Amino acid sequence: MTTSDRIKNAQLRAKVMSAEDAAALIENGEIVGMSGFTGSGYPKALPKALASRIEDAGEDLKIGLWTGASTGPELDGALAKANAIVSRMPYNSDPAGRDRINKGEIDYLDMHLSHVAPMVWEGFFGKLKTAVIEITGIREDGSLIPATSVGNNKTWIDCAERVILEVNSWHDERLEGMHDIYYGGALPPNRVPIPLVSADGKIGQTTFRCDPHKVVGVIETFLPDRNAPFSPIDETSRTIAGHLMDFLEHEMKMGRLTDRLLPLQSGVGNVANAVLDGLKDAPFHDLKAYTEVLQDGMLDLLDCGKLTFASATALSLSPEGAERFRNNLEFYRDKVLLRPTEISNHPEVIRRLGCISMNGMIEADIYGNVNSSLVMGSKIMNGIGGSGDFARNAFISMFVTPSTAKGGKISAIVPQASHVDHITQDVQVLITEQGLADLRGLSPKKRAEKIIENCSHPDYRPMLRDYYERAKRDSFGLQTPSLPSESLSWHQRFIETGSMLP
Amino acid sequence: MTTSDRIKNAQLRAKVMSAEDAAALIENGEIVGMSGFTGSGYPKALPKALASRIEDAGEDLKIGLWTGASTGPELDGALAKANAIVSRMPYNSDPAGRDRINKGEIDYLDMHLSHVAPMVWEGFFGKLKTAVIEITGIREDGSLIPATSVGNNKTWIDCAERVILEVNSWHDERLEGMHDIYYGGALPPNRVPIPLVSADGKIGQTTFRCDPHKVVGVIETFLPDRNAPFSPIDETSRTIAGHLMDFLEHEMKMGRLTDRLLPLQSGVGNVANAVLDGLKDAPFHDLKAYTEVLQDGMLDLLDCGKLTFASATALSLSPEGAERFRNNLEFYRDKVLLRPTEISNHPEVIRRLGCISMNGMIEADIYGNVNSSLVMGSKIMNGIGGSGDFARNAFISMFVTPSTAKGGKISAIVPQASHVDHITQDVQVLITEQGLADLRGLSPKKRAEKIIENCSHPDYRPMLRDYYERAKRDSFGLQTPSLPSESLSWHQRFIETGSMLP
Repeated sequence: MTTSDRIKNAQLRAKVMSAEDAAALIENGEIVGMSGFTGSGYPKALPKALASRIEDAGEDLKIGLWTGASTGPELDGALAKANAIVSRMPYNSDPAGRDRINKGEIDYLDMHLSHVAPMVWEGFFGKLKTAVIEITGIREDGSLIPATSVGNNKTWIDCAERVILEVNSWHDERLEGMHDIYYGGALPPNRVPIPLVSADGKIGQTTFRCDPHKVVGVIETFLPDRNAPFSPIDETSRTIAGHLMDFLEHEMKMGRLTDRLLPLQSGVGNVANAVLDGLKDAPFHDLKAYTEVLQDGMLDLLDCGKLTFASATALSLSPEGAERFRNNLEFYRDKVLLRPTEISNHPEVIRRLGCISMNGMIEADIYGNVNSSLVMGSKIMNGIGGSGDFARNAFISMFVTPSTAKGGKISAIVPQASHVDHITQDVQVLITEQGLADLRGLSPKKRAEKIIENCSHPDYRPMLRDYYERAKRDSFGLQTPSLPSESLSWHQRFIETGSMLP
Repeated sequence: MTTSDRIKNAQLRAKVMSAEDAAALIENGEIVGMSGFTGSGYPKALPKALASRIEDAGEDLKIGLWTGASTGPELDGALAKANAIVSRMPYNSDPAGRDRINKGEIDYLDMHLSHVAPMVWEGFFGKLKTAVIEITGIREDGSLIPATSVGNNKTWIDCAERVILEVNSWHDERLEGMHDIYYGGALPPNRVPIPLVSADGKIGQTTFRCDPHKVVGVIETFLPDRNAPFSPIDETSRTIAGHLMDFLEHEMKMGRLTDRLLPLQSGVGNVANAVLDGLKDAPFHDLKAYTEVLQDGMLDLLDCGKLTFASATALSLSPEGAERFRNNLEFYRDKVLLRPTEISNHPEVIRRLGCISMNGMIEADIYGNVNSSLVMGSKIMNGIGGSGDFARNAFISMFVTPSTAKGGKISAIVPQASHVDHITQDVQVLITEQGLADLRGLSPKKRAEKIIENCSHPDYRPMLRDYYERAKRDSFGLQTPSLPSESLSWHQRFIETGSMLP
């Protein structure tokens, strides 16, 4: 099979060119909106050709890079290594990119994912020059079949002056029909309700519209998604997942949830995998997911029938997961739907559906303010991503983490968060391997007691108790007792000595 | 006119009793949901009778008190002075209540106002025993005509085991028809879109439904709302308003807003009054407000025709404003609509309408994290209220404050916020009398430069520059340069010396 089978529109077939020729169209200083979300569906040929203009041809070339979220080494990695990124939005998890951000070499705009498309439409971020979008194929009518992520692709295609397509025949053609691209959006005052009332609802079309005159180049590729390997579930994560399962069962017994729960949102990572794994044996059934990404654990739940439907904006699978997905695509076809991020993460939809939200974090303070993004308050890990969209609007917002990091040298429960992504009002449940703190209805001091006693690691618990007792004695006000002279001292100690322990 | 003219339902007329008899029904330890929002429409007789059971009769009586938001001295003030409140939700601005909260004597749950009704319905806060609701009158069919605020009244009436009504004939009977009580809400998975697409849309009914069997007492009163006096606009506020007007005009010139703007949301206070006053002479017309409260400044704008409609959940008028409102009620009747807070503050509606959001604050840090609630990170001022509902979902979210407080001894721009209510992602524009910082599209370091140079007071600007320069040199990471050993030292200095200045 040649890749050109995928390009069924003659006008666009005439625009096929090499990645190098397409990359030559990008001008120094422009903003480029690329596809890609959690290592899926990002362009893999043009970015490398762009990096080569710098690294091999010695050009002075820097771009502003917008995507859906994180991408892969062939995009963020290649461009960051070539020092080709002057500004980055809205999310990065690439190590090379992270390193440049933390050295102050890339201007990184870390945004709520639900804000990105609307604010670009509203004209707040300047003119998007070029969209570079990976797709599965082009239909005869010129409409574009999305690939393994949707992200902000619709917005980039609509808003960019010109479009470059990467038609990647690595993607399975049977992806067609597994996307729901909503075209009912508008700028205020013309916005109307988003008519989605269940995780499995369809409100859009299966393809992207694209004016063929805007397309300046089509690249043919056969290149795999990043597909990060899946790490086996460790004991700590399994313990955390156990606490979470107990909580959900308790909520069911109390009549606040049924045995079908409510649509699940789950972040990525080891704890999330353990939670999804734990659901396999839990007394729930006919579950649905309304989330950002579909991980291997969701496939497991679909396979065993616990999960009947998953709505996301991207796949985020291991190489084995990607193969399993492909091999059983006929089974998954009517159970998985990928949407634009502006829909998957829309507060309107999340609050309406009443998602059960489970996200990881770096640290929480004793009042339940959560830091998801900045280690020691200054060094970016990845970004806030969609966690804020879900946490504030969820039916129940849960944050999970091991109680320590770096071999016990960092406590995930601290006197004061060094940075806040999720304010105390948006955090209803905190879980570590030590236990679970159900914070609903609790005033700050009661939250503090529960978080310290239930969630902190025994190595740090006496230190937290001591801080809190002295804060209750000496604080300026007693709504949230605190001692500004030492509330960030644990972070300072880690910076100076490499450990939060004295 | 006798007050009983207001009670047209015979079954409920038979339940008229004294405030003392009604107050005697409240039991020690129960949760009571009362009406009231920013000093409007709160019960004024029963709470005083309740306080008298403690202060005069020496009873041991404490309740959990839920309301819409702040109330008045006859409710929060009387009960706080009598030490009758064991827990308080979701907002307090009463001085006596604030004092007890900051002494640790009242458990205060400071919530997003949009979370309150849904979470009570979801069963997260325990059983609501009694609703005590002030109304304008009772119709023949037993439905209740709301008063000058709606707040959480619908939820309290629906969820409480029993209801006590205060029929206050101080309220103008012509208020009937000026409320829009939405009964389309549900628990997930049965929620549907809220069909509101413009600030002036009507989606509900004009009265509260109430099962007459649940009503255990009806009290007749003739008592005025709190109606706090209006302070004249000072020079600092007028300067801040000027910057804000310039910004709106600039946005209009750039084509991002039209001369009709978008629905306005405005907090209360001196700066908000100045902004509303400034709109009188600005080149905008046919404005609408979609906001929490209707202040005197909104009446001015309605009177001069600049504002054509105001949607809110409560009135918050001065005594003169209240009189003006009453005298011109026929003019205001089709231009003002009061809704339940769960609608006035719903993220779905706010994001759809694209509100222009303007709220006050206590402090912002150099990255634009905003503290709206806790002085020096621990002493409650009022609470987050609805500011988070609007800030995160607004078309443009602006925060305003004088650059200093306490005669220059407190800087409103600090190295690190001592508490965060609004994360940097939710703050697009910061304004002080020094100037305006348009933060859209800026990475943290560019935000810092703009905030320091445009918004900070000259007395503190060199200190902020010095801190920021050293942070850029010595910070652990350079995404948001910070020095945890001194980032809260300004607050510590204020606590120790009474001034942030060295």
